[in-house]
Amino acid sequence: MTRANMIWPNKVKICEVGLRDGLQNEKKILTVEEKLTLLDTVVESGIKVIEIGSFVHPKAVPQMADTEEVARRMKRVAGVEYRVLVPNLKGLERAHGVGLTKVKLTVSVSESHCINNFNQTPLEMMKGFIPCVEYAARHSIEVSGALSSAWGCAFEGKIPTQQLEKIVKAYLELGITELSLSDATGMANPRQIYEVGSHMIQTFPQVRWVLHLHNTRGMAMGNIVAGLQAGFTTFDGAFAGLGGCPYIPGASGNIATEDVVHMIHEMGIYTGVDLLKAMETARMAEKIVGHQAQSVVLRGGRCEDLTKEKARYQKNE
Amino acid sequence: MTRANMIWPNKVKICEVGLRDGLQNEKKILTVEEKLTLLDTVVESGIKVIEIGSFVHPKAVPQMADTEEVARRMKRVAGVEYRVLVPNLKGLERAHGVGLTKVKLTVSVSESHCINNFNQTPLEMMKGFIPCVEYAARHSIEVSGALSSAWGCAFEGKIPTQQLEKIVKAYLELGITELSLSDATGMANPRQIYEVGSHMIQTFPQVRWVLHLHNTRGMAMGNIVAGLQAGFTTFDGAFAGLGGCPYIPGASGNIATEDVVHMIHEMGIYTGVDLLKAMETARMAEKIVGHQAQSVVLRGGRCEDLTKEKARYQKNE
Repeated sequence: MTRANMIWPNKVKICEVGLRDGLQNEKKILTVEEKLTLLDTVVESGIKVIEIGSFVHPKAVPQMADTEEVARRMKRVAGVEYRVLVPNLKGLERAHGVGLTKVKLTVSVSESHCINNFNQTPLEMMKGFIPCVEYAARHSIEVSGALSSAWGCAFEGKIPTQQLEKIVKAYLELGITELSLSDATGMANPRQIYEVGSHMIQTFPQVRWVLHLHNTRGMAMGNIVAGLQAGFTTFDGAFAGLGGCPYIPGASGNIATEDVVHMIHEMGIYTGVDLLKAMETARMAEKIVGHQAQSVVLRGGRCEDLTKEKARYQKNE
Repeated sequence: MTRANMIWPNKVKICEVGLRDGLQNEKKILTVEEKLTLLDTVVESGIKVIEIGSFVHPKAVPQMADTEEVARRMKRVAGVEYRVLVPNLKGLERAHGVGLTKVKLTVSVSESHCINNFNQTPLEMMKGFIPCVEYAARHSIEVSGALSSAWGCAFEGKIPTQQLEKIVKAYLELGITELSLSDATGMANPRQIYEVGSHMIQTFPQVRWVLHLHNTRGMAMGNIVAGLQAGFTTFDGAFAGLGGCPYIPGASGNIATEDVVHMIHEMGIYTGVDLLKAMETARMAEKIVGHQAQSVVLRGGRCEDLTKEKARYQKNE
């Protein structure tokens, strides 16, 4: 008889993408000072991989227009990876211009999505990555890649695994071996994460995988659990769970960094992140953007807080 | 090498506890008519197990004071189990008085919790269940049992597995074989659910288990995934995710029925529940209580909705 068997890693790596994927959907455009304050707190929390912004066209995403200034003015702490999203060579040059040494390229794995938005197939779009990779090599910039719509697409629904494999192979041919499987539409479910995820991990053992989840439909925390079983150990998160669609009040965005860290710690897995500090970042982010986001731990508190509160209460009785 | 292996049941049973555990924490006390409207919609959604209220002291929980009237006036649909929570013989007699045939007894597994609140140990409290079981047998009432604080307690933190086993054995000695492991404080984590859950399921194969989860700290959906791996196939949920603490604005309560049903369906598992109807119940519940609760699917929509919306949009282009 087939029996379930769950296993847990000793260690998980958390990447903070709030400054990019969290803030890019906010109506309010933050000042550079506000971004730097958030960035400092993220670093203090012990997170070692931080996506600080993107070099897309400022008219398309005005929230990210000041990424160069953020990069110029930020403290650079040794051992912390400051990453930016770049769509093309132009963006990569801007990243290099401010001395950044890690970038992320991105392509939607969905044919319809790519053709509809850019009039190109994913593989055609990726031809534009060749000069990026060459430029990056010349300037010692590390390049990672994202597969967006990897778990589902509004145009196509589920994406065939062969299509995912095709894009992964194309990235590998470019020499890019750190790949993020992104679920910006929140369509991934835990069974799919486990089944497709284990398949991808086994098929491409040379890849360092990142799982990028959104909680749009409430499945992100279940996906983390299934992702751990598939073998993922690196997860993106955004402080406070920012990144929801500004046109759907209350809609969830990125999985909240502090919710992930809390759950992972509760399971006895090490992250190296100071949870209280991560919660402080999230509270600060909510204050700066001017509204609550979908963090659950920020409202309900840690398990530990509940026990402590009761202990305090008993003592006073 | 140990490898993870996830397996999935073909079928999951959903119990709706919103009318009891959802509403008992609301400031607003609903009218009997409002409760009956909600109850009708729950039945229409295809849910077959419904906790309609409790027979506790009306001064302690005024929100449940009208449970007798609800029971008297509700339509009784064949094949639907209408359950009430009863704390003692008095409650059971009231349930019998209105012709109910299914009750749930409950005890906290935490020694400190019991002693602090009732000045009795859990086993001492359970002595009070003996006349209940005898009365129920005489009147053909089915009795189930709940183990509250099963996954953690504000006084004690984690509960030793031996303590859980002791309470399960006491229930079994009373002839009660349907048992709910309740996490009203939202302290359970997925690893614990899997490890303790599989142990309990293997140790007591005669028990029909129910998993009752709250999303207070964001772990409930991950706990469902781990619960399925442990072998649980029956889960409580509350429409809209009601049941948060009224004193913590925005704090999550019970896991939202519609979030669970949506995720379970996305994983290709059958529930027999009409998701759109369950979402209708949840929207109605939010309207009646007068505030949004923590349902995620209600805000973000189903996966299917996203794909349909895009298809419509493409057609109009």
